Amino acid sequence: MDKIRIPAFAEECARKAQETLDHCAKLPGSLGRLEDLAVRLAGITACAAPVFARKSLVLFAADHNIVRRGASASDQSVTELQMRNFARGGGVINAFCRTASAGMTLVDVGMLRDVDIPNVLCRKVVHAARDFSEGPAMTRSEAVACLQVGIDMARREAAAGVQLLAAGEMGIGNTSPAAAMAAVLTGLPMEDVTAMGLTMTPESLQHKIALLRRAVALNAPDPADPLDVLAKVGGPEIGAMAGLMLGAASLRIPVVIDGHIATVAALLAERLFPGACTMLVGSHVSAAPGHAQIMAMLGIPTCLDLGMRLGEGTGAVLLFPVIDSAVRILHEVPPLDSLSLA
Amino acid sequence: MDKIRIPAFAEECARKAQETLDHCAKLPGSLGRLEDLAVRLAGITACAAPVFARKSLVLFAADHNIVRRGASASDQSVTELQMRNFARGGGVINAFCRTASAGMTLVDVGMLRDVDIPNVLCRKVVHAARDFSEGPAMTRSEAVACLQVGIDMARREAAAGVQLLAAGEMGIGNTSPAAAMAAVLTGLPMEDVTAMGLTMTPESLQHKIALLRRAVALNAPDPADPLDVLAKVGGPEIGAMAGLMLGAASLRIPVVIDGHIATVAALLAERLFPGACTMLVGSHVSAAPGHAQIMAMLGIPTCLDLGMRLGEGTGAVLLFPVIDSAVRILHEVPPLDSLSLA
Repeated sequence: MDKIRIPAFAEECARKAQETLDHCAKLPGSLGRLEDLAVRLAGITACAAPVFARKSLVLFAADHNIVRRGASASDQSVTELQMRNFARGGGVINAFCRTASAGMTLVDVGMLRDVDIPNVLCRKVVHAARDFSEGPAMTRSEAVACLQVGIDMARREAAAGVQLLAAGEMGIGNTSPAAAMAAVLTGLPMEDVTAMGLTMTPESLQHKIALLRRAVALNAPDPADPLDVLAKVGGPEIGAMAGLMLGAASLRIPVVIDGHIATVAALLAERLFPGACTMLVGSHVSAAPGHAQIMAMLGIPTCLDLGMRLGEGTGAVLLFPVIDSAVRILHEVPPLDSLSLA
Repeated sequence: MDKIRIPAFAEECARKAQETLDHCAKLPGSLGRLEDLAVRLAGITACAAPVFARKSLVLFAADHNIVRRGASASDQSVTELQMRNFARGGGVINAFCRTASAGMTLVDVGMLRDVDIPNVLCRKVVHAARDFSEGPAMTRSEAVACLQVGIDMARREAAAGVQLLAAGEMGIGNTSPAAAMAAVLTGLPMEDVTAMGLTMTPESLQHKIALLRRAVALNAPDPADPLDVLAKVGGPEIGAMAGLMLGAASLRIPVVIDGHIATVAALLAERLFPGACTMLVGSHVSAAPGHAQIMAMLGIPTCLDLGMRLGEGTGAVLLFPVIDSAVRILHEVPPLDSLSLA
């Protein structure tokens, strides 16, 4: 993996942004967490009044053979079906990107089949993560390769002039590696971080929790070695999202985090490079179990409360126009004491 | 006041919108309250897949002579200063409207001075609401005239092709009539609905609460007569916002509600025409006391949780792009069972 250096959050620029907000034509503090958002973006970009004219979502797809153990109610083929749908512009995430005038980059980092879909970049590291109830999901070098795909994508987007990113994913069954990684990395009980799929029954949820507990016990990932956790009980798209976050952070490009899966990627990025999560931006509180708790652990505030749990990056992209509004204040609202009755 | 008829929420269109959402390419229910939002908009507009190509904020300004009793820490002149600033495009609300590609109509419904500001419509009913700690804020016919201004504005926007509205306000001191009206109309204790201005001290808040209690006792508005409440302890812009909501509802144009002041206008609209609030859309939970409680009473869900309390319509306009995303799904995401691996 390429060497990465995460720059420090630019406190001075954040302070200048807060000063602008304190003196512009409104009551100080009256925009609540929208002000915190503008200030955070100033600190990440090291610019007291950042501009995000070009925005993009990078969406990583992968499959997970653990679904064959009944860890998901959806058929594994849906990953590919949806990637083909996204490539044609038919996904919910496509619609949201159009609202936000955001670009979209689709990346195959671990889909099951060899596919050749127009508009999908092939950066396949594995043909699906292996069933980690039987052994490691990936080798350590495969896990590193997934991170590298994400880092490469951050650099590619930056080279294309993108100033603001969102991390998205598609991967039937990826709530399983997300739950396993979250449990191992945070120490939270498995039942607190395991999502009940929308078509699951309480019984199948219990089955999933027991399966994940056994899988973690079998693989015994080292919580102090985040790469080991990613390799043994993780997923390719989670590694790639973490890589995107790290690559973007090294370039001072903010990455907006979506829901449960993306938050586990943020947790991984933070454990790999402590401080990395200061360069990330939260979007919504997901309905997925444990999501709010992990965001709080990372100290990343959220703005939207919609009970969403779709993934794809949908919550993150919904935040793009909110970010536009937040940073516009820094540019377009004059100081209160400059107003006159003339 | 013109005769108004509020049409029924179109249950059949709402049901059709939900069906579209249930069968499009995502897990059923996975978009949480964003789905409820799309469904609500379908029911309001009586269109299973509404389009909101033209959006606009209507902002009503008025002054409140009760501020002379120490009910606000801001100077009364700020209302005019800000209206001049908005007319030049320099307000936070202007910046948010630009993000949302929304129009903006500024209306003087009760500013203190006779002003001639370009881009501000003069529909002045009073030269400031009278100090209601000494007697009624307005006469009954003035209160009716304020409602009529709002109704007229809804029709004017509709005639210009606007399909989605937000109600905004500017009026130093208007948290006082908002609190008094909320307390009288809901029966909640005054301290539960009285906002502490951002520059107020705990002592000045106690003063404000006591002042408002005495003012309500002096005027003795009839809780069962919403017009009486508006006239005696209300404000011109609150009446006009309620009028906008009623006029828009009669035309099946959704109005997005902002924070505390706009929510009291929604409460007034509902009490004047029971059922009117089914035609309204919530945006954010304000940091102002009682706001979440009144929204819950009205049964109007919210989406954004930002701790904002600026007013001007800022929270409402922040929702416009979220609405765009929500309704795009109804148009742009194909049914899941139509997807293929070809």
